[in-house]
Order: sequence, then C-alpha cells, then structure tokens
Amino acid sequence: MQRIKVKASTNYEVVIGKDLLNKIGVEIRKIAEPCKVGIITDNKVAGKYLETVKNSLEKEGFTTYNFVFKNGEKSKTVETFIKIQNFLAENEFSRKDILLALGGGVVGDLTGFCASTYMRGIRYVQAPTTLLAGIDSSVGGKTAIDLKAGKNLVGTFYQPIKVVFDIKTLDSLPEKEYLNGLGEGVKYAIMDGGEIYELVKDGLSHANLEKFCALCVKSKKAVVEKDEKEGGYRKILNLGHTFAHAIEKLSDYTIPHGRCVAMGLKIIADVSLKQGWLSTAESILVEKLLKNNGLMTPSPFEKKDMIEVMRRDKKVSGDKITIVSIAKIGKCEFKEIKLDQLKKYLR
Amino acid sequence: MQRIKVKASTNYEVVIGKDLLNKIGVEIRKIAEPCKVGIITDNKVAGKYLETVKNSLEKEGFTTYNFVFKNGEKSKTVETFIKIQNFLAENEFSRKDILLALGGGVVGDLTGFCASTYMRGIRYVQAPTTLLAGIDSSVGGKTAIDLKAGKNLVGTFYQPIKVVFDIKTLDSLPEKEYLNGLGEGVKYAIMDGGEIYELVKDGLSHANLEKFCALCVKSKKAVVEKDEKEGGYRKILNLGHTFAHAIEKLSDYTIPHGRCVAMGLKIIADVSLKQGWLSTAESILVEKLLKNNGLMTPSPFEKKDMIEVMRRDKKVSGDKITIVSIAKIGKCEFKEIKLDQLKKYLR
Repeated sequence: MQRIKVKASTNYEVVIGKDLLNKIGVEIRKIAEPCKVGIITDNKVAGKYLETVKNSLEKEGFTTYNFVFKNGEKSKTVETFIKIQNFLAENEFSRKDILLALGGGVVGDLTGFCASTYMRGIRYVQAPTTLLAGIDSSVGGKTAIDLKAGKNLVGTFYQPIKVVFDIKTLDSLPEKEYLNGLGEGVKYAIMDGGEIYELVKDGLSHANLEKFCALCVKSKKAVVEKDEKEGGYRKILNLGHTFAHAIEKLSDYTIPHGRCVAMGLKIIADVSLKQGWLSTAESILVEKLLKNNGLMTPSPFEKKDMIEVMRRDKKVSGDKITIVSIAKIGKCEFKEIKLDQLKKYLR
Repeated sequence: MQRIKVKASTNYEVVIGKDLLNKIGVEIRKIAEPCKVGIITDNKVAGKYLETVKNSLEKEGFTTYNFVFKNGEKSKTVETFIKIQNFLAENEFSRKDILLALGGGVVGDLTGFCASTYMRGIRYVQAPTTLLAGIDSSVGGKTAIDLKAGKNLVGTFYQPIKVVFDIKTLDSLPEKEYLNGLGEGVKYAIMDGGEIYELVKDGLSHANLEKFCALCVKSKKAVVEKDEKEGGYRKILNLGHTFAHAIEKLSDYTIPHGRCVAMGLKIIADVSLKQGWLSTAESILVEKLLKNNGLMTPSPFEKKDMIEVMRRDKKVSGDKITIVSIAKIGKCEFKEIKLDQLKKYLR
C-alpha cells in the first residue's frame, strides 16, 4: 500500500493499494466524524462495488445515501448536476456531510463539482475505479461538467479530502479502459523519465501496477503543488493534449481520452523532432515506449481538419499556439509555434 | 468617493461614490488589460444603465457582450446559469475575460456563480444598483443560485476583482427596495455601534448615504477578512437572519429579504431581553433604531409556524439552535437556546 500526501489549498492523502474499497469506511473515519455520506456512482460501477462501499461506511457509523446515474460521458451534464444537488437537498445534507465519488473520471469530475458548490462547498472523497481516474483525474482537484460547446467548460478547482484508489478494481477493467489510462500514464513517463520510465518502457507488467500508479500520482502531485489553479506551470500536464483534444473532438468523443493522448504524444514527438527540439535517438525511445504499451495507433484524421479544430484552442494567440514539446525523456518545455508550421508536420 | 480595500483570497477594492457607472471602464482598466467583458444584467436594470456601462467600457478598449434576463429572484436558477454559460462559450470567452454583474443581489449572486465556474473561474466585477447589493451582497464573495428546496443552496465562495457601487443609482430606487437594503444596514449598526449607529439611529438622511454605505462595507469587510469561507465567525452576519429566513420562507419569498431581517432583528432583541442577555435600556435603543428607519413591521406569522420552519435550520442541533444574540448596541454574541424556550418568547 502506498500513501502519498498532497499539499494544496486542502492537504490530503492518496492511498493506493489492493482491497481498499472494503476498508474505505475506516479510511474516511480517520479524517471525519460519522456523518451522512452521499455515494455518487454510475450504474455499471454500482453493480460491482456499491454494496461493499456502503457496508464498509455503515460499519464505521456513517449513514449512506446513494445516487446512481447512467454510465458514460453523456451523463456529465448540468442535468445530472442539478439532480444530484436536489437529491442532497431532499436528504437534508448539511455542510458537515460528505460526498463519495465511486467510479471513473466522469463520476469524479461530476461529484467534485457537486461537492464544490453544494452549500458553497462540502467535503468529498475520490474512490477511482479506472486506471485513468486513479492515476490522473482523481488527483489535483479539477472538477467539471460538459457543455454542448465543449467538454469540461464549467467546473472548479476543489480538492478532495482523500483519494482511495483500490487497484483491485483494475482486475475487471476492460482492456480498452486499461489502455485509456495507460495513455495518460506514459505521458508521466515521458515528462519525468527516471524510475517511472524504466518501469513502463518495455511495457507495463501487472506486477508493477501499484508502483506505477503511485509514481504517476507523485508526478502529478509535484505539478499541482507548484500551481494548483493552473496559472501557468500546471499546463505542462497538457503534454500531447493539444492534439489529443482535436482528435477527441473530430471523433465526436468516440475515441477514449487516453488513447487520444497517446496519439497526441506521438505527434508531439514528431513535431519536436522536426523542429530540432528532440534528437532522433530520443524520439525512437518515445516511439518504443508507445509501441511496447500497445499505444501506437495513429490519428485517423486529416491534418487540415486537425489544424482547423486547434485554431480554436485556448492556447492560440494570433497565428501561433503554445504547445508542450519534448526535449528528451524526462524533460518537456513550453514552445510557441506557428499554426502554419505545425500543419506542415502533421501527416 | 470612498475606496475600501478588502483582503481575502483575492484582494480587491470597493469603490463607492456618485456617477461611477460612466467611469466603470476606467475603473476596470486600472486592473485589467482590454479583453472581452460579459455584462450580465436584468431587463429592468438594462433599460436604465446598460448603454452607459457599455460605452464606458468600450471607450477603454474593452469588447462588450451582454446577457439580459428577466428581473427577479425567479431567475436565480440553474436554467439561467446554464444559459449564461452557453452564452459565454458561444462567444468564445476565455479565462482572460471578465464578467460584470450589473444589478441587484440576484444579478450579483448569479454572475458570481457563473464567473466562479466558467472554465473553472474567470474574473468578475460587481456593479450593484440597489442598496442591499451595494452594502451587503456584492462584498464578500458569496455566490449562489436557488434550488426548489431552498434559496442559495448551490454556490461558491469566490471574490470579485472590484466592486463599483454608484450610489447615484439609489436615486431612482423604489422606496420598497430602499427599505429592503436598510434592513441589512441597521443590522451593521447594531453589530458595530459607534459611528455607523450614530449615523442611522434617528433615521438615515440622504446626505449621509455614501458614508453609511462605506461603513456597512467596512463592517462586512472586517468579518470576511477574519473568516472568508464561513468556518465559524462569519456567521455573526446572520444576526436576525434565523428568524428572517423563517419569515421569508413562510411568506413564500414575497416579503423582501431586508424587511425580513428587520423583523428578525426586532425578534432577536425581544428574545435577548427576555433571556437577560440585553438590558431594557438597550432594547429600547434597538426598537427606536428600527422605528426611526421605518422598519418596525412585526412578523405576520404564527409562532408555531415560525418554529416549525426553524426546526429545519442548519444551525439546529438536537433540540437546540445557535443564534446570534444582542448583548448591547455594538456587541453581538453566539448563544445556544432550546427551541421550546424560543417558542415561548415569540408572539
């Protein structure tokens, strides 16, 4: 089991290990008196883990309530948000009570947003059940819902009081979902190099999963502690994401986020190489890293379409865009590049 | 003109004076580069001030957009909230842009909530046009929307970057709206005593309005700086409000908030007297203060109904409730009292 402390506007612990969901009551009881806990989850996750979590909480004296919505990004809307808020009001939740996000990124983002705004903020705990949520979205306090105009357009920065990541949940994760998380994971390997890169460069083995998750979280924690509200530096986490967001949008969000990130990592490696920011030898390492982890799918979209979407990216200023480039494994940097130049590099 | 600095998670200035709306562009330009400004207002206020504000902003190089909704508390909903968020997304507002709340408390609360959540937080300016908003709700960063289950149940703590209170707008304020603000104003006189009490004890004269507003804001600022997120001490601002909230609810929100506060102040003075917390001489001063300001309307509701509503108040614990009592003019204290005891005191 790993315990990682995050120091932000709220300090909290990320606990990573096996069979944690049936001890989640104990984990929360360590930092909170018995109170109401609103478990927010989706129908797929509820079927697997809701009873375990409820029992564990009630055993420690918490009173549980649950709100289950339909699995999928399509639920991450203002409609679900307001249903949850009404559910909390009807059950007379007070500022002293707690929400628990049990599920993947959609559940976590939505629950965090509800917690940050119900009565102007109540506590919440993240219990991620996917690799993507466990190593990335559950840590750092970004909460959000989607608008028709785009994903994550409405949200807050609001830290959980604890993250409990039971990696046993990954055993039943579909391969597709696993690769979705791994896409973000290899990003941390490229950013940090060193131990995490060594662990994953030849393909991540199941035996190293706990260690790998902990290293990803430590990498993210270091960034969040420097720049919690994304004033500048936190944007380094956007490595690969400028392209990933364009691919996601063009696919109408049918390609999972982490897969798009992997595609984006390949593109930024190519761009960095062609711009002379990255050596050939290092670019081969990036390619191998992606290949060895089953993440070497090229973007299926035309370069002119990609550029058209990127033109509306918030990192565009005039005819230029700021991107996170790769200097080498373990070193990434902000660079400005003309969109026309970028267009030439895309396939 | 008065300039008051508030030191909170964001530091900002509250500017109070005459004819400020046609200088609002200059005021905002002092703290922000030219960018998009989304003016959020209601149809009543728009008719009076929108052109003035737009012109002033555009003269200083800001690009203005405006969103006008129907005047009244009934607009303070998730529906209006999401319409504003879509309006911002459609007009491609970025994190660098600004919202301007032009209007009373409903406009301010709603705009603040939109600003705190659009792209996880953009800057906003408060330009209150009512006495209630100018002396109370525009300062301190409480933002909110209503749920069917209750007022202000969803919101954030999120400070504006400036408050520009043009007291010239009060000239055209209906008497009813003026008294609504004064109800909160006399609360500050009771809390602080001294200069603000002297100014208002024989009835507030128009000549003293600017000074009075500034003193109310200074009083609130002092509390907010001690306890921005209402961990405890900020609840002192709830003087009179336990009863006020019950009256508001029983009237189905037809009696304006500030009038309910005035009724609540009379009740808490009576309760404090009967409990021996307040002397007879001082209780007469509270009564005179209310009378001299035209705020001596008794609550029209039965005590059993009042208590029934209060039983669901978040300050209730078991059979007791925590209320803010009056010790004397200039001194208020938290006290716990049994609901049954309280019931005896109500008329």
